[in-house]
Amino acid sequence: MDLGLKGRNAIVLASSKGLGFACAKALAHEGVNVVINGRTANDVNAAAKQLTDAFDVTVTPVIADATTDEGRAALLNACPEPDILVLNGGGPAPTKFTDIDQSGWEATMHNQFVSPLMFVREVVEGMAARKFGRIIAITSAMVKTPHPLMTLSHAPRIGLTTVLKAISRDYVEHNVTINQMLPERINTDRQKQMAQYLVDTKGITTEQAYAEIAASIAANRVGTPEEFGEACAFLCSANAGYICGQNLQLDGGSYEGVF
Amino acid sequence: MDLGLKGRNAIVLASSKGLGFACAKALAHEGVNVVINGRTANDVNAAAKQLTDAFDVTVTPVIADATTDEGRAALLNACPEPDILVLNGGGPAPTKFTDIDQSGWEATMHNQFVSPLMFVREVVEGMAARKFGRIIAITSAMVKTPHPLMTLSHAPRIGLTTVLKAISRDYVEHNVTINQMLPERINTDRQKQMAQYLVDTKGITTEQAYAEIAASIAANRVGTPEEFGEACAFLCSANAGYICGQNLQLDGGSYEGVF
Amino acid sequence: MDLGLKGRNAIVLASSKGLGFACAKALAHEGVNVVINGRTANDVNAAAKQLTDAFDVTVTPVIADATTDEGRAALLNACPEPDILVLNGGGPAPTKFTDIDQSGWEATMHNQFVSPLMFVREVVEGMAARKFGRIIAITSAMVKTPHPLMTLSHAPRIGLTTVLKAISRDYVEHNVTINQMLPERINTDRQKQMAQYLVDTKGITTEQAYAEIAASIAANRVGTPEEFGEACAFLCSANAGYICGQNLQLDGGSYEGVF
Amino acid sequence: MDLGLKGRNAIVLASSKGLGFACAKALAHEGVNVVINGRTANDVNAAAKQLTDAFDVTVTPVIADATTDEGRAALLNACPEPDILVLNGGGPAPTKFTDIDQSGWEATMHNQFVSPLMFVREVVEGMAARKFGRIIAITSAMVKTPHPLMTLSHAPRIGLTTVLKAISRDYVEHNVTINQMLPERINTDRQKQMAQYLVDTKGITTEQAYAEIAASIAANRVGTPEEFGEACAFLCSANAGYICGQNLQLDGGSYEGVF
Repeated sequence: MDLGLKGRNAIVLASSKGLGFACAKALAHEGVNVVINGRTANDVNAAAKQLTDAFDVTVTPVIADATTDEGRAALLNACPEPDILVLNGGGPAPTKFTDIDQSGWEATMHNQFVSPLMFVREVVEGMAARKFGRIIAITSAMVKTPHPLMTLSHAPRIGLTTVLKAISRDYVEHNVTINQMLPERINTDRQKQMAQYLVDTKGITTEQAYAEIAASIAANRVGTPEEFGEACAFLCSANAGYICGQNLQLDGGSYEGVF
Repeated sequence: MDLGLKGRNAIVLASSKGLGFACAKALAHEGVNVVINGRTANDVNAAAKQLTDAFDVTVTPVIADATTDEGRAALLNACPEPDILVLNGGGPAPTKFTDIDQSGWEATMHNQFVSPLMFVREVVEGMAARKFGRIIAITSAMVKTPHPLMTLSHAPRIGLTTVLKAISRDYVEHNVTINQMLPERINTDRQKQMAQYLVDTKGITTEQAYAEIAASIAANRVGTPEEFGEACAFLCSANAGYICGQNLQLDGGSYEGVF
Repeated sequence: MDLGLKGRNAIVLASSKGLGFACAKALAHEGVNVVINGRTANDVNAAAKQLTDAFDVTVTPVIADATTDEGRAALLNACPEPDILVLNGGGPAPTKFTDIDQSGWEATMHNQFVSPLMFVREVVEGMAARKFGRIIAITSAMVKTPHPLMTLSHAPRIGLTTVLKAISRDYVEHNVTINQMLPERINTDRQKQMAQYLVDTKGITTEQAYAEIAASIAANRVGTPEEFGEACAFLCSANAGYICGQNLQLDGGSYEGVF
Repeated sequence: MDLGLKGRNAIVLASSKGLGFACAKALAHEGVNVVINGRTANDVNAAAKQLTDAFDVTVTPVIADATTDEGRAALLNACPEPDILVLNGGGPAPTKFTDIDQSGWEATMHNQFVSPLMFVREVVEGMAARKFGRIIAITSAMVKTPHPLMTLSHAPRIGLTTVLKAISRDYVEHNVTINQMLPERINTDRQKQMAQYLVDTKGITTEQAYAEIAASIAANRVGTPEEFGEACAFLCSANAGYICGQNLQLDGGSYEGVF
């Protein structure tokens, strides 16, 4: 399937590893020039080199904290007219509700809600003017099933989801779509760390640890970054312009609700 | 129906008028002692007097901005062990997404998300310890159907909804329920202003203005504050302890979705 | 709280026991004349006597299978102009999907989808003409979270939910509301049977069996029929006319989704 | 993007035209052998010829009513071990609720609920045994926002959705996914007929008629069959095994709800 993306330009936030990298790689595979971003120079440069070696596209590493004004400016300087923007970023640690104070809420709202919206505000009008735009926000399976220990993570993300849904209705007629991807247990470093944590604390083997993680998923396995990346590329494809405002769950069929 | 609330104590935020006052009145009617709150002394005192005259309960006026630390302290000082907490507050004006800057988002998140959560954090453990608690958040019909001009209003409210849903699962076993009420077009001052606005700008009669507003509702009428207040009282009732985490829409049947 | 229902007339299907009886009792308590229905004469007559003895209302027993044309006719003959209709009925036994044949689907669709809709069709226009109607369908928590062994039960019920939602938008302007109640683990005979089943098969005490059932609920207890009945009466109240198309979950806060 | 489908076998119901044909074509483009189905010999044969001419796959025309036992048998005879099953079929005409009698409900439930489930029952165990299966049900945007005149159409479809969701949780671990596609205003014969109807009744031009239809969609245009087909092919792809139980809306961003 030709996704019709050759020559497009993408900014993928937090893309030196994990889900962000998977998206960047899948886009590069389709001929998209990508901006690779992260805060650690070694990681960013290694990721950029990997894509440069593999694909005939321009890969621009930008070492920056994308949640800051300076980081955003640096990213937009590297790619002033992105066709694709993938919003991504690490989430806060599990925290009990009664342990969260005002500053905790303010920090997570800044990083995962205000900051991505400032990014969208910078690019969305240009996308509309150029009659092509694909914005993907990587959120979490938990925006539909919130968890008491993860409120710092999913509250800003569902806020983001709601704002993006609202404004998407104004931009879709200009061929700018905004969609969310809701991952659950994709085999990135995060799952490897979790598996290692189970190995260390339970005295089980790595295989057993993965089996335990897998058992929490209806598909009885973790997802692969490739699967995630391809779904991202599909949602960005030229022919996906009629798909907008969706929350695509990549959760191995685990979600229990009808909708 | 005896709601089993006689002698309970409630704090109702922003209750000198409108939906907040409707809730306070319905609770007072059931024998609940209420704290009336608002920023304007005349309004608060008038509302308190109205309830004192009508019902045999203790009514405590607290003139304070409930979104501030001082306001919260004053309210909790007036009622240190509330059985019922109704979260309420005015929303921001309609604003285009591209006109909202960081400070705009931060302000609305403070007022409608962080501030109510700080209130919940202060009272929820005590409610659990005393084995009775009813927390009602008055949000908006738009948390389920967001609108491009109202993102400042519904983003914090759906964030609040999600956090409250998450933590409600930890408290419901202690007979503390948390529910949301989602109003649409209730006949408070706000609708009266909107009707007047239509009268002024369109040169139509008040009756015609109300007809126009009514036509936007499936029930073809605005709701009454009494209807809203009674629903609040019901959700707070002693026998409503099995109802938790609900988003009750009071919208004259307008919402188009199945769920 | 005065529900404003004195002198109204209600038909409650399958009301000799369980949830149906709980609704009928709560309505009778508010002064509503009720038609009690079931297939077993002794149960129906005993239920009717209990309400007659307790409340100053007219209670009419109708021994009939409400899923048949004859049963429906008998019920409507006993109460030709109901103000309130509570749709209720037992569900089919758990069945594996691959064991369900055409006749199995057809039977459950008849009993739990077509038959209640035929009832609604008979009464809804009259309710609209008389400018008061309250239709409550007792469905199941599982309409929002379907279960592989319970498809015979929730498929017709969600179909019913959807049709009722669709048509409610046409009737709400005539003060006819249609809402659903979604119970989970209410302490009726069904839960008593389940507890006894656990006692018999696991060799545990009744108390332990109830504890096991309770542990499946966030509230850590089963609901009471009284709680369920009062919620029904509230939704039928004169002042609940702005609440329409809702799916009220009575599940002890167990549902994990945001909406 | 290589969808990894070369050599797979698909049955696409009602695929001589419209959405079904679009799916069959997109699958054939990926190297999938397809069974083309419809009730009209000329249409089926023409569609099959078109795909045979264009793609190097086996195309098998089956002229049959897929809602009958005989039709199902003929289709399974032509492709006894399908890897992909696309459930599709025309919907009933708009009908007022009070005009629908028992036989009307029974007919639509047979055609759009029981009959597709019988098909699923025939193939799903084999898919699980062979560790690959993709079932797509083409439903409707209206399963999430039901319409009073279309209850005959969306009631069976949401019932189907619910059953498929429930059982998908049992099959996804065998790499069998079940997803729904919810179209709105795709430019098939149906929209062409609707446009012509507007031309005839309103005395407007074809261009104006399409503009009117487009205005009902947030994207301000109808979707193309190609867009729809590609989305189907993507959901069937080898790497889409972690996507299961989703309701993908292809509606030009029109749906107003958050989820």
